[in-house]
Amino acid sequence: MINQDYKKMLTGKSIIRELSEYATARGAEIGYENVFDYSLGNPSVPCPQGYTDAVIDMYQNLDPMAIHGYSPSLGIEKVRGIVADSLNQRFGMDYEAKHIFMSIGAAGALAHAFRAVTEPGDEIIVFAPFFPEYHEYIRHTGAIMRVVPANTQDFQINFQAFEETINEKTMAVLINSPNNPSGIVYSEATIRKLAELLNKKQQEYGHDIFLVSDEPYREIVFDGKKCPYPSKYYDNTLSCYSFSKSLSLPGERIGYVAVNPRATDADVLAVIMGQISRGIGHNCPTSTSQLAVSQVINTTSDLSVYETNMNILYDALVEMGFEVVRPGGTFYIFPKALEEDANAFCMKAKKYDLILVPADNFGCPGYFRMAYCIDTDKVKRSIPVFKEFVQKEYGL
Amino acid sequence: MINQDYKKMLTGKSIIRELSEYATARGAEIGYENVFDYSLGNPSVPCPQGYTDAVIDMYQNLDPMAIHGYSPSLGIEKVRGIVADSLNQRFGMDYEAKHIFMSIGAAGALAHAFRAVTEPGDEIIVFAPFFPEYHEYIRHTGAIMRVVPANTQDFQINFQAFEETINEKTMAVLINSPNNPSGIVYSEATIRKLAELLNKKQQEYGHDIFLVSDEPYREIVFDGKKCPYPSKYYDNTLSCYSFSKSLSLPGERIGYVAVNPRATDADVLAVIMGQISRGIGHNCPTSTSQLAVSQVINTTSDLSVYETNMNILYDALVEMGFEVVRPGGTFYIFPKALEEDANAFCMKAKKYDLILVPADNFGCPGYFRMAYCIDTDKVKRSIPVFKEFVQKEYGL
Repeated sequence: MINQDYKKMLTGKSIIRELSEYATARGAEIGYENVFDYSLGNPSVPCPQGYTDAVIDMYQNLDPMAIHGYSPSLGIEKVRGIVADSLNQRFGMDYEAKHIFMSIGAAGALAHAFRAVTEPGDEIIVFAPFFPEYHEYIRHTGAIMRVVPANTQDFQINFQAFEETINEKTMAVLINSPNNPSGIVYSEATIRKLAELLNKKQQEYGHDIFLVSDEPYREIVFDGKKCPYPSKYYDNTLSCYSFSKSLSLPGERIGYVAVNPRATDADVLAVIMGQISRGIGHNCPTSTSQLAVSQVINTTSDLSVYETNMNILYDALVEMGFEVVRPGGTFYIFPKALEEDANAFCMKAKKYDLILVPADNFGCPGYFRMAYCIDTDKVKRSIPVFKEFVQKEYGL
Repeated sequence: MINQDYKKMLTGKSIIRELSEYATARGAEIGYENVFDYSLGNPSVPCPQGYTDAVIDMYQNLDPMAIHGYSPSLGIEKVRGIVADSLNQRFGMDYEAKHIFMSIGAAGALAHAFRAVTEPGDEIIVFAPFFPEYHEYIRHTGAIMRVVPANTQDFQINFQAFEETINEKTMAVLINSPNNPSGIVYSEATIRKLAELLNKKQQEYGHDIFLVSDEPYREIVFDGKKCPYPSKYYDNTLSCYSFSKSLSLPGERIGYVAVNPRATDADVLAVIMGQISRGIGHNCPTSTSQLAVSQVINTTSDLSVYETNMNILYDALVEMGFEVVRPGGTFYIFPKALEEDANAFCMKAKKYDLILVPADNFGCPGYFRMAYCIDTDKVKRSIPVFKEFVQKEYGL
């Protein structure tokens, strides 16, 4: 019989998807160039030419049997080694191939990480604002998601609320820095304080608490800064990565989990994830994508457009009078709406062909998200429209 | 904390993997050409040149943003339509794009199909002999796997045992024809009888019973025959397919579920599978693989070597005195061992560098599997060795 739980999910629509579909339909009417579509987090720059060249070279010159054979379920050994080396070089870690589990994007990485370190009924703590899919990612593992309310001052961690939420059932804590939707990068001080608190709680509760660090935006940071690498600060860390944003390859579905070599059971955690794969039908990412990313492991797309767009938008939003924290990375910005009901605010914006996403689903009502992974020209053209909108609707 | 259930799985080793690893290690010692490795079901012929050409053309001539963008979680609409058309043409079905769910190989297809039509505690019936991974595929959905013993006469369905096993909790029945490990193709009579019985039981129990048809070997059939398409005979069928064997692309991880348009809730089942994806981190197969297979949808690799190998092996096994049913497809053959304990039999064969897999894990003790997806030359060279083995060890 058809599973009723999944069937019920069909009635709950994603606001992001709904707005994105509206934008596409509206674009068909008035020309998509006239729709200021800030709904979707789809990279707007091509993958590096090196990636394309690597694939063509592989298909032209290598034995098809070699490149299309089964990959081991933990990933191709050589590729896992290359990922480990690259992380060691960049973040001063000491991973070996055995600590790397190749995954089908960050979604696949998280699906394995959660299952590896929790059992049904355990609690996983998430900090608002957060990517709405975390709800479903966690719910289907059988674990329970607990939300720590946002610190809207600077979108660093609300530690007081965190201490009130953490308890003996907490087996994992999920962070996402640089953050979707706020664009905020956790400071080194935040990560240190988090690590200190988790270490204290591990001792107090007498069990491991794993830090699951969702890092797809790790390479998109602004002002020439670097994003602190959480695993450097806390041993029980599983770093979940996707090449979707840094290489503009969301369709390739390729990422990994990197297990801190000092984590409990570090040597078997990737193998455990291989077992998890058997049950969830994952069975490793595409072999050719694994081979290709390993050849461009230390490069990225030209990501500078995101910083350019952020600066234009941030300055304009501040000028218009919005309350907004300046993003340190990603391609998102997260201002406070001009009325309490962010849904109403975004519906009004729609009339001006400004597609903004209200943040109730991100666990932060009253705010809205703009995904500025679009052409800079369109960002610039959207500013006068935005000004007209806030002036006419809110008298600003 | 680390999940103890998954951790325990580490102690259970796969005999196939163990033997395959042994074969590789032994090959390093004496030259792999001297190891008659019948352990692994890895295709031994290259993918069609048309596939390689399609990928190169795509990378050389199409916009990287277009080919590497997010695929919708149900698959790329155009690709789903091409799959539907191809199935309609070949099997006289009337699928539309909405009935096709693109999946990460057959493992991904099954992971979604099981979850879509069962709830935890429901029973799924499997017929021995079966692919050992079904245990884990099913267990992790929360459903319970019930095994119908093999009909070792011809490896068609043991209907008497099936009728004794099916009950009100049976929500799905899993078949795999052409079959791994027996190589047997279910006859039209078998499929008809199965459909009739399932229809009767649906009525009796007052609920749907879905037929989950695992069909990765559908295109590898011998003697110019065709494999009956189960969905043609039973409405509540989910056909699970992988391109791994027909296009020799196991590393690409690409397949689909095709929902019979007359199945209960046919129009939403693929959408339900999209919801399931959110929880298990699947999120669609690689976009470029989807686009490439859609361009060679009606072609296959040159699969003739498998039939050549089967005939050589079958004749030799019969000549040596083995009890064996002639395979109708796949690249497996499944003889009865020459002693009751197939493990002992296979361990003795190992001494002759003949790598055979005992079938206890396939739910059929006393038999062994040979995967003859290897060079025909090696198959021929293995025969005298096989004869020496059975003569010296069993006096045949």
